[in-house]
Amino acid sequence: MDSSFVIKTGGVCAATGFHASALSCGIKDPSSPKLDLAMIWSDSPAIGAAVFTQNRVKAAPVQLSSDYLRADDPQAIIVNSGNANACTGPVGMEHARQMADATAKSLGIRRRQVMVASTGIIGLPLPIERILPRIKELVEMNGKSDCRRATEAIMTSDTVPKSAMVEVEIGGKKVSIGAMAKGAGMINPNMATMLCFITTDACISKTELQRATREAVDLSFNRITIDGDMSTNDTVVVLANGRAENRRITARGPGSRLFRDALTALMVKLAKKMVADGERVTKLVEVQVNGAASQRDAEMVARAVANSSLVKCSWNGEDPNWGRIIHAVGYSGAKIKPELVDIYFDGLCAAKHGIAHHNGISFKDLQKVVTKKKFRIGIELNQGRAEYHIYTSDLSPEYVDFNRREYAVPQG
Amino acid sequence: MDSSFVIKTGGVCAATGFHASALSCGIKDPSSPKLDLAMIWSDSPAIGAAVFTQNRVKAAPVQLSSDYLRADDPQAIIVNSGNANACTGPVGMEHARQMADATAKSLGIRRRQVMVASTGIIGLPLPIERILPRIKELVEMNGKSDCRRATEAIMTSDTVPKSAMVEVEIGGKKVSIGAMAKGAGMINPNMATMLCFITTDACISKTELQRATREAVDLSFNRITIDGDMSTNDTVVVLANGRAENRRITARGPGSRLFRDALTALMVKLAKKMVADGERVTKLVEVQVNGAASQRDAEMVARAVANSSLVKCSWNGEDPNWGRIIHAVGYSGAKIKPELVDIYFDGLCAAKHGIAHHNGISFKDLQKVVTKKKFRIGIELNQGRAEYHIYTSDLSPEYVDFNRREYAVPQG
Repeated sequence: MDSSFVIKTGGVCAATGFHASALSCGIKDPSSPKLDLAMIWSDSPAIGAAVFTQNRVKAAPVQLSSDYLRADDPQAIIVNSGNANACTGPVGMEHARQMADATAKSLGIRRRQVMVASTGIIGLPLPIERILPRIKELVEMNGKSDCRRATEAIMTSDTVPKSAMVEVEIGGKKVSIGAMAKGAGMINPNMATMLCFITTDACISKTELQRATREAVDLSFNRITIDGDMSTNDTVVVLANGRAENRRITARGPGSRLFRDALTALMVKLAKKMVADGERVTKLVEVQVNGAASQRDAEMVARAVANSSLVKCSWNGEDPNWGRIIHAVGYSGAKIKPELVDIYFDGLCAAKHGIAHHNGISFKDLQKVVTKKKFRIGIELNQGRAEYHIYTSDLSPEYVDFNRREYAVPQG
Repeated sequence: MDSSFVIKTGGVCAATGFHASALSCGIKDPSSPKLDLAMIWSDSPAIGAAVFTQNRVKAAPVQLSSDYLRADDPQAIIVNSGNANACTGPVGMEHARQMADATAKSLGIRRRQVMVASTGIIGLPLPIERILPRIKELVEMNGKSDCRRATEAIMTSDTVPKSAMVEVEIGGKKVSIGAMAKGAGMINPNMATMLCFITTDACISKTELQRATREAVDLSFNRITIDGDMSTNDTVVVLANGRAENRRITARGPGSRLFRDALTALMVKLAKKMVADGERVTKLVEVQVNGAASQRDAEMVARAVANSSLVKCSWNGEDPNWGRIIHAVGYSGAKIKPELVDIYFDGLCAAKHGIAHHNGISFKDLQKVVTKKKFRIGIELNQGRAEYHIYTSDLSPEYVDFNRREYAVPQG
């Protein structure tokens, strides 16, 4: 990937023809003006691509949006926080449909041109009567496009709003891609729902947009662990309205690599922001696996290590515990040979050929690495050339304490 | 399984012809008399069966014992605690061999008739010079057979020694099965190594003993979760010396079901003792999955729920959080239909058809269940007839704190 992209401050209103607005309709807290409803829309029809949660328990808006996405010309996204509209049955589906209806009506478009998203409490019906009457206002606020307020309106346990934009030149035309996201990654207590909405004025084929989105998600949001947990509401939506008037990007056509790289860079930026926003987490750890016989093996090893409670506890305790790491490598399910495995802490070799390595590296040297806020665990399997990396965190007593109780019902 | 077995107080010396002894040779702590070396042996050659860790990183004694087990007549087990002899390379293999050699010599048997086991610190060489000279003493202590001391000698983070025995009548002959075990199950901080040694005077075919052992382990030790972690040293060994002089038990022959059930009951008893001994754990939770399309699906669902950090945190907080449970069901990988899933807390329905159930059951009713020390989560998938159950615990801030640091190196 071209690392020369400059990710800039900006958001979903950066690309030509896109707007956003937000207001408070009392879902999060009826007695406070916390923003909890936002709309993002394009002046003109767009094409859309999306990646939704792989959890078989899918929130109503996820089911609805993945159905609507089959329409050729999505044009708007309506999203609320404070209630996930998940595990809500047929009533939840009806509510999601009503949100799409009201949005379509207020914009003069069709219902199926609207994507719906929700995040918050699971299992309680959406207070739909508070939402529907306010949707029109979101459009009327146009002219006061407020990207930052919209970004704030989707936050749940996030402590900072997350947005960014990137510009690339494709065929002599300036193409902008802007994004907003929420989620505190693997450190989020509330099932780690992650939402990401991306808008671009690129002219691109629907197939290519879907491929680019899939690839970018695999290299970004799918590379941060969420305790092995996967939310019922995870959604990444990309809308492209073609207003940059570049020559249409198609698979393998000019600009396609450039666009994919820019989209990926943007998503990686936001994924790292999620990890960086993790509360009750003290370490950001990159687990880099090299020398695997296959990428699948590399990924199995990386995920086993990144999700091991015992490994994560040791990082919290600043204990350079390579034994716990190699033991997670051993049970990962990957085809590994213990006698070939090397373990590194920020490049310092802790174990070589599966046993302790003492060649000039002391316990203190290793300990110094794990006292840092960010470090990298290198795992060399010496069996092939495949690699995989993933970002994870430590596991703190405070995380467990924070997650002991929710309001009464879970979040998604 | 016949639940009428009476599990009695007893251990590895209960069966005719078996002996055990223990001493301190300063592996755990050179300056204290903590027991850390034990021997179990039969007067006469026995047949053996075993189940070893599935972790690809296997400690030296595990590698050696699974090789030696091919001999037809194992007769002794030598075991140390305080050092796992894992990740110790060729030197570790040599040390394990030396332990077998010294044991064989002291008993006048062949090296390959000895099973070796170790548990404790990983990655440090065994202090073999302290062990070898003492092995002879273990045999000389014969006559003072001390089952309880041997059981104590294999403890690491266990707070109580774990042993039991069961008697059955097979073809008019009294057959005894005795066992000792160590491990604090899924709550053990130190990689949860579990060791279990079982002795019986049953006369049984080697094939049938291996099948009975495999079946019993699947229904006992494989039904307690260990945070998804799996030790490098897990070992279950069963020795049968035939001294009960019953008609030889063979597959499907008379007594085979009875023997299997008795062995299973014994192992289930010890598995539950491990969970009950879990420190820093406040809840023992049985996750019972019913109505799955296949046993594989049922097991995937049970394990996903039993290993979910967020679910385990909620139990610690005494929050009857069915949403976290259904969300783990959803990402388990099993073929489930969310709209068919029901969730129960000790039989009280919290969610029906994938959504909140309010039919006379209040939040307080559910909360009362999770305040108990033991409760059962029932998950009805309504897709078939397969079932699976597993025992797990909550996840406490104290567990994390306890696991933040080890000595410097991990345990196995």
